[in-house]
Amino acid sequence: MFAITILGNNSALPAFGRNPTAQVLQTNDNSFLIDCGEGTQIQMSKYKIKHSKISHIFISHLHGDHYFGLIGLITSMSLLNREQDLHLFGPSQLKDIIDIQLKVANTILSFDLHFHPLSDEGEICNTKKMTVSSFKVQHQIDCWGFLFKEKKNPRSIDIEKAKAFEIPASFYDNLQKGESYLTKKGTLIHNDSVTFAAPPPKTYAYCADTLFHTSLVEKVKGVHLLYHESTYLKDLEDRATARYHSTTTQAATIAKMAEVKQLMIGHFSSKYESIEPFLNEAKDVFENTILAVEGSCYKI
Amino acid sequence: MFAITILGNNSALPAFGRNPTAQVLQTNDNSFLIDCGEGTQIQMSKYKIKHSKISHIFISHLHGDHYFGLIGLITSMSLLNREQDLHLFGPSQLKDIIDIQLKVANTILSFDLHFHPLSDEGEICNTKKMTVSSFKVQHQIDCWGFLFKEKKNPRSIDIEKAKAFEIPASFYDNLQKGESYLTKKGTLIHNDSVTFAAPPPKTYAYCADTLFHTSLVEKVKGVHLLYHESTYLKDLEDRATARYHSTTTQAATIAKMAEVKQLMIGHFSSKYESIEPFLNEAKDVFENTILAVEGSCYKI
Repeated sequence: MFAITILGNNSALPAFGRNPTAQVLQTNDNSFLIDCGEGTQIQMSKYKIKHSKISHIFISHLHGDHYFGLIGLITSMSLLNREQDLHLFGPSQLKDIIDIQLKVANTILSFDLHFHPLSDEGEICNTKKMTVSSFKVQHQIDCWGFLFKEKKNPRSIDIEKAKAFEIPASFYDNLQKGESYLTKKGTLIHNDSVTFAAPPPKTYAYCADTLFHTSLVEKVKGVHLLYHESTYLKDLEDRATARYHSTTTQAATIAKMAEVKQLMIGHFSSKYESIEPFLNEAKDVFENTILAVEGSCYKI
Repeated sequence: MFAITILGNNSALPAFGRNPTAQVLQTNDNSFLIDCGEGTQIQMSKYKIKHSKISHIFISHLHGDHYFGLIGLITSMSLLNREQDLHLFGPSQLKDIIDIQLKVANTILSFDLHFHPLSDEGEICNTKKMTVSSFKVQHQIDCWGFLFKEKKNPRSIDIEKAKAFEIPASFYDNLQKGESYLTKKGTLIHNDSVTFAAPPPKTYAYCADTLFHTSLVEKVKGVHLLYHESTYLKDLEDRATARYHSTTTQAATIAKMAEVKQLMIGHFSSKYESIEPFLNEAKDVFENTILAVEGSCYKI
C-alpha cells in the first residue's frame, strides 16, 4: 500500500466545511503525517487513521494552518499512553513551541519524541522501506517540500518453479536480490526464470506552500504523484505571486514540465465556496489532475 | 440577553463527537469566550457565534484541552482583518506561548491584543454592563474560576405615565436612577409610580477544572448558574481526587451548599460514551441540574 488520505485541504482559515492542511501517507509498515493544521486529530478520528500507526510527522513551515493541530495530537498520543517513538521533522523553532506548551502543563510525554530540525536539502529519513528527502520551496517564511520514495522492492519468487529446479530455501534471499543459482550438476538456473520483478518503487512529492518557480521541476521530476498547492484560480495570479502562493495553471505547468504521472492540487483559498473550478483550470494544462478532497484516499 | 452557549464539553481528548472545553457568554453588548480548546473556531462557525462579537477571552489554565484552539482563533481574527481590541485573561505564560507562535510566522495582528495575566483573586474586568472576577480553584497546575456579574440595570420608565405627570424628558435619566420628581406646583411624583424595577442582575460562575473543595462555596454563593466540572461519575471519586477533578455528586454538593439557582455540569471524561448517567447522579443531590451539551444555548 502507498496511499494518501487528505485530512484538510484549505488555506489559512477553515471555511465551507474545509479544514486546514494535513495529509497521511500510509504504507504497509508506517504512516507518515504531512502537516497538521488545527483539528487534525479530530479529522484522523473521523477518517479512521490510527494514531498508533503514525511513526513520522513532517511539518513544512510554521504558518498556523500547517501545524496548530500538532501539539494537540502529540499530547493526545501521550494521554493514550503511546509507547513507540515518534519522529518529528520541521523548522527548528517548532521544538521551542512544543517544549513551552509541554512545560507549562508539567507534561512528560509517555513516549520518546525525536525532533529533527530541517536545515539542508537532501535525505532526512531512511526507514526499512522508504526514504524521505526535503527540498526548499519559496514562501513568505522558511518552507520545505518533501519527497517520499519507496525503496526498491525485492524480486518475487515463483515458489513452484524454484522447487521444481530444486533450489534450496536457503538461497531464496539471493534469488530476491537477483542472483542466479548454480546447481550441484553445474547447470545455471537464470534468476528471471524463477523470479519476477516487483512493481517499481512509488514516489510522492509534497510541495507545501510555494510561489510558482521552475526550479521545483527537477526536484519532483517524474514522480508518481505530485502535490502542488493551488491557492487561487488563474485570474488571481498577481495575488498568488504577492502572497508567495500559486494558481491552478501554475501548479499544472510544474506538473507538465516535471512529467509527473499525476497531479493533486489543494490548499484552496477560503474565499472560494466551490473547489470544482480548480479542477477544470488545471486539467486544461495537465489532464491527469485530481483535487485534494477531504476524506478521500488516493492509492498510488 | 445573558446566555451561555456550549462549544465543547469534553475533558482531555476529543471523543464520541465531543470537543474540548469552550463556552461563550453572550450579552446584548459583548460576548465573552471562556476557555478555547482545539477546534473552537470551527465550533463557533458551526453554532453561529461571530468572531467580531467576542470582546474578551478568559483562559482558566494551561492544559491543552482548555486553550489549544486560542492561537488559531486569534490568527483567524487577524486574517479576517478584525479592528476592535481584544482582551485576553489567562496565566502569565500564555503570553509567551502566543508571542512565539506569532513571531515564527512574522505575524503582526490586525488588532490590539491586550493581555491581562491572572495573579490575584478579585475583579479583573469591568465593562459597561458587567464585572468579572477571578477566583482560584484547586487543580494540578495554576487554575482559575471566573464569576460574571451583570451590573444593576437602571429602572425602566413607564413613558405613558411619565408623560401624563408632565415629567420632562430631561429628567428621565434621574428617574432611571430612582429619583422622584418635584413638579413646578410642588407635587412630588414618587419614582415608583412612573418606573418599575429592572430584573435583578444575572450571575454566572465558571469553576474550570477543580478538585472538590468546599471553599468554593462562598465564592459562588447564590449565583443564577454555576458551571462545575464533573469529569467522572461518582464511583470514580478516588480517581477524580487523584487527578484534581470532581464527580457528579461532588459538583452537585457544591451547588447545594452554595444555594445556586441552577447547576451545569461538564468536562466529561473521554472514557464515557454516554453522558446521560451524569445527569441522573447529579440530580439525586441537586435537582435543578443540566448537562453542558454542545451547541445548546442556556438562557439565564
